[in-house]
Parts: sequence; C-alpha cells; structure tokens
Amino acid sequence: MKVDGQHMRSIELAGDGWSCNVIDQRLLPHRIEWASLETLAEACTAISEMWVRGAPLIGITAAYGVALAMHADPSDASLDCAYRELAATRPTAINLLWALDLMRTTLESVEPRAREQAAYEQAAKMAEQDVRSCEAIGEHGLGVLQEIAEQRDSAGPLRILTHCNAGWLATVDWGTALAPIYKAHALGIDLMVYVDETRPRNQGASLTAWELAQEGIPHALIVDNVGGHLMQHGMVDLCIVGSDRTTATGDVCNKIGTYLKALAAYDNDVPFFAALPFSTIDWSVRDGVQEIPIEERAQREVTHIRGVNSRGELDELSLAPQHTRALNFGFDVTPARLVTKIITERGVAEASEQGLSELYKLARGAHTS
Amino acid sequence: MKVDGQHMRSIELAGDGWSCNVIDQRLLPHRIEWASLETLAEACTAISEMWVRGAPLIGITAAYGVALAMHADPSDASLDCAYRELAATRPTAINLLWALDLMRTTLESVEPRAREQAAYEQAAKMAEQDVRSCEAIGEHGLGVLQEIAEQRDSAGPLRILTHCNAGWLATVDWGTALAPIYKAHALGIDLMVYVDETRPRNQGASLTAWELAQEGIPHALIVDNVGGHLMQHGMVDLCIVGSDRTTATGDVCNKIGTYLKALAAYDNDVPFFAALPFSTIDWSVRDGVQEIPIEERAQREVTHIRGVNSRGELDELSLAPQHTRALNFGFDVTPARLVTKIITERGVAEASEQGLSELYKLARGAHTS
Repeated sequence: MKVDGQHMRSIELAGDGWSCNVIDQRLLPHRIEWASLETLAEACTAISEMWVRGAPLIGITAAYGVALAMHADPSDASLDCAYRELAATRPTAINLLWALDLMRTTLESVEPRAREQAAYEQAAKMAEQDVRSCEAIGEHGLGVLQEIAEQRDSAGPLRILTHCNAGWLATVDWGTALAPIYKAHALGIDLMVYVDETRPRNQGASLTAWELAQEGIPHALIVDNVGGHLMQHGMVDLCIVGSDRTTATGDVCNKIGTYLKALAAYDNDVPFFAALPFSTIDWSVRDGVQEIPIEERAQREVTHIRGVNSRGELDELSLAPQHTRALNFGFDVTPARLVTKIITERGVAEASEQGLSELYKLARGAHTS
Repeated sequence: MKVDGQHMRSIELAGDGWSCNVIDQRLLPHRIEWASLETLAEACTAISEMWVRGAPLIGITAAYGVALAMHADPSDASLDCAYRELAATRPTAINLLWALDLMRTTLESVEPRAREQAAYEQAAKMAEQDVRSCEAIGEHGLGVLQEIAEQRDSAGPLRILTHCNAGWLATVDWGTALAPIYKAHALGIDLMVYVDETRPRNQGASLTAWELAQEGIPHALIVDNVGGHLMQHGMVDLCIVGSDRTTATGDVCNKIGTYLKALAAYDNDVPFFAALPFSTIDWSVRDGVQEIPIEERAQREVTHIRGVNSRGELDELSLAPQHTRALNFGFDVTPARLVTKIITERGVAEASEQGLSELYKLARGAHTS
C-alpha cells in the first residue's frame, strides 16, 4: 500500500540480492526507518522484539530468516538451528511454524550447495503468495462489506470497528482485516473505521491509524474500552479483525481484547468477522481457549509507554507507581460461537469445522504452498 | 485510608475554616500535591478538569463549592448561580445533582445571613455521611467476598478484578468497590486485585494501583484488554466496580469499558458486582443505555498520555499520527441483566427495580441526607 503516495511493502529483498529490509515498526507512526536483516540472529531479533509483527509477516520474515541462515551456512545443522531458533521467537502465531515447516520441507530435499538459491526462491514465492492471498481476502471481504452496506437501515458511511493492526504492515501487502476496507474505499464505498488503540503496544493508534491516514480512509481512534458503548448505541455496522491462529473448529486467536469486542458484537447483533489466510489455520487444534499457547510479554510494556514528546523526540514514560507488578498476555481466543464468518483467500466460511473444512477440503493436503 | 502510613481523606476543610483542600489527583501516582479551593470557580475547575473525580467525591466537592459561594455571597442569586455552574461541570455522575439539590433545599429555607454556616454544616454532614456509607458498603461487600472465598474450589488468594478507581480517592474515604477489599485485607483474608489500567485517563494504573500499594494489598496491573482472557481461564473469582449513576432498574453506568468486563464475567460465570451509595441511584431513570447522558471528553486524552520520563519529570507524549481524530466517551452502561448484585450501604440487592426498591422502600422519601 502507500506511504506518502509511494507504493511500499513491509519486507523487501535488498539490492544486494540476499539481505532483507523491513520497516522497523516500533518507530511508527513517528518515524519510517528501514532495518537491514543480514543474519539469522537479526531475523530472530526482528521477530521477537517486534520490529516486524502480524502473523503473516512473522511467517515471511521467518522464511527469509532461513534464507539468511542458508546464505551463511547451507548445512543440515544450520537448517536445523535456523528452524529451532526462529520457532522460539514467538509462541502464538502459527504462521511462524507454517513458514518454517514449509522452508524445511523444501530445503531438506535439496543439496546443501543449492539450498541458498532454493531458500530465497521459496521465501520470495511465499511472500508473493501472501500478497495474492491478502488481495483475495480483500475481494471476498469486499463482498461482505457491500452486502452489509446494502442491507442496513442507517444512512452515512459504513462504520467498521477493528482491533490491533491487521493491515498491510501485518502482512507483506494489503493486510487481512484491512484488505476489504482498502478494496471498498478504492471502489468509492462511503466508510469509516473505528480504530481500537490496542494496549499495551498500541498497534491500532500507531499502525492502523497511520495506514488508514496514508490511504485517505476516514477513521476515528478510540481506546479499547469504547467499542461496547458504540455497539450498544448502533454506531457500528460490523467488526473485522485478523488472527494469529485459528483452530480447525473456527476459534479465533487474535490480539488480547478481541474476545471482549466479539462479546459486545454478539450482545448487540453486530456481525463479527475474522479475516485470515490459510497459513493462520492450525488444523491440529480443536479447542482454542484450552490449547493455544498465549504469549506473556514484559511487564514494562504495561507500566511504561513510548511516544513523541513536545520536542519531537521519541521518549518513554512511566505510567504506574514504581515497582507495580503487571501481567501482560498478548492474545486471547474468541470462541467460534461469537464469530459470524471467517473470510479467507478461498471465500467466506462459517466459523466451524464444517465451514473451514468445506472451504479447504479440495486442496487440504496439497495446499501447503 | 493511608498514604505513607498516615491517614488521609481526599477532601478536607482547611485550617482557616472555610477553604477546602483536595488532593490534585491528576498528579498521582507521581506526586502528592494538595490544591486549595477558595472560590466557586475553583471548585468548578477542580471537578471539570478532574483534580477530583469519582462520583461520590464529585458530589462532596460540589457541596463545598456551594459553601464557598455562600462564603463569598449568600444571596439567592449567588445560590442559583452556584447550583447552575456546578451542575454544568460534568454530566454523567448523578451524585453531583443529588448533592446540589440537597444543598439548595437546605439553604433555600435559611436566611442569607445564616447560609454560610448552614452550607458548611451541611457539606460536612454529607462528607461524614459519605464516609459512613462507604464503610457500610465495605461491611456488606465483605460478606460477599467471604461467601465467595468459602464457596470456591481453587486454592490461593481470592482474585478480584476491578475497573477504574472506585477507592477512597473516588469518595471521601474507604471507597465503594475497594471498601470491601480494604475490610477483607484488614481481616487477614488472602486476596489479590487485578487492576484494569482504565484508558484513556488510566485511573486504574495511577490511582487504584497506588491506593492498593499504600495499603499493602497484592495486585497486578493489566491493560483493559486482558480481563476477558483471565476470566476464560478461571483466573478471576469476582469482579467489583463502582458506579457514576445506577438506574431504578439496576442498570449500572460506570467508567467506559465496564460493560465489556461485565459481558466477559457473564460469559464465564464470574460474579459481577457494583458497589455504590444511595446518592448514585437515579430513581428517575429506567433505561440506562438510552437515558443516561454519556460525557464526551477531549480527543487529546486519547491521542496523548501523561507520565514521568526517565529524568523523573512529568511529561506528555503523543501516541498517534498527527491530526488523528479521536472519539472519547467517558462512561458506558452495563445492563442490569449482567450485574449479579448491587452492594450499597443498606445491604446487597438484586440489580432490579424490585431489589433496589426493597432495599430503600422504608426510607425512600426520607433518605435524602
């Protein structure tokens, strides 16, 4: 999508043909800085310290991390090490393991001397596939938005609530939850987006608001506490979020707080959608609440906050009494019963085992690339 | 309650016998500073700019605001003006109008030359009554906590989730939602409190965490998004919140985001309590969602945040892209169907018209002071 009118992707191969450039998302919206990833260790840091984030982009960055490892050392031991170290960077997004499994499967059958080239080709293919998947999610989601826009009684813009950032910065391009919004806006559909700020890391305030502003899409920033009130008062036409892992039964794991919005949507008959690619579905998990590992992050993300001070400098403030203990869970699981539909690159499905398996049954074994 | 081991109240008459001192709560937890209120205008500012906040304390501050007006000018015109200006400071907390009505009723029947003394006497009486009410809420709520502690299966501390600050800083002393917690802790009951940070003004992180730390009560700060996840995983034994206005039918208006926690509690069979004094009940309102006016505050409360920087200075950071539009609703309404019980100074009632009217029927007309 666009930055200052220029088209950009969140991850790109550098001019040298082997290192990778990623937007250092920790600095947005205050600064746009690219970080160069030249080693496996740097790729691991970029994921674990959230220079990049968003389940699909984590997967693609991991794929390039394997390629960087193969650039340095294409041995079996190096491949194993790359898999292990990248797999340990973050626990919740299943796209990470999906990408690593795919890279390993591809490279295991290739001789070490040919692995570097095969790794970069596979990573590039996965990045392109991510873009195509997200664009397809956008097209299918567009149909959902058009249907709701036509059926509703109220005048004025279609009002969409989203949580966290499931835009192009969470993927290679287009995004998942935001892709239908970009498509609809491009078609001239009158819409606006309520952007949950998404504490503690504020991906809504810093990334989603920034993306939408760059594309000229009307939006209003709200704190995470507000969505229920808006829905009670008929001010939201639909909710749409991304996912970090979706179970075979349609439970949607996503950024912490998603479940609360889904409860409010259900309580107020507001349709609630999750938009995600195939790589986000974990066919091995049936009970999302019980089985999906939920990342716990540093207390400091809760007790301190980063932003820009009045002198235009990036700074950090302490928000709580000294020595306050904090608990920081990164994700929660929205049970399938609260999800109206799941939007994927294949189409729109019921959030259920039947819905998802029907969407993918033709190619389930084969559809791994 | 205690500050550095010393007993304190949130509002006190000064040594001069007529001006008032209040804790400037905007500076907590970073600094404890008292502000002197010497005029009606200063009392209005203290309420509207949230030097003081919390429905009961707003009411008592308004009562002293009328007294300050009578100190300057005890005429009928001055009384009318004080009523009007104080009533316009904030729209949602009904305790404000309750206190102003009570002051006006008391003073209208008093000759102007006797009004100053009558005003201070009435304000002091209301402040004392607030302390007694809150302590009684604490006693009744203690019974609720003891019952839940005895009935639950799990070992370890009783785990209580609260939203915003309904502690002694929101009242004159003791608090509403926190009063039972103070009582239980004093009795040696093993408990811990999950403190919602409560964006955008972070009253949980800055006031509740501070109050609990001063009393030595174990607690964990969480962002507002986390409570649903905790409740899904059986990590919360009960929720307890305050209220800014509760309807005759038991709908509970409270800090924005309360409704989301009540939905999660209901979805996970976690009991959800509201603790409030008589002065918070608006007997004229039946449908809280439709009828209670919800304050909209400045966008800057969402786009910017205050705290202490690494040099120990109070500072403010910008969190969002420049020119981002924000919507800032201060309160929401939790329908009675999601509230397990309402705890008042009279006892514990069903959140229903019958429950509340039975609790107050003996003295409903008379119980206005």
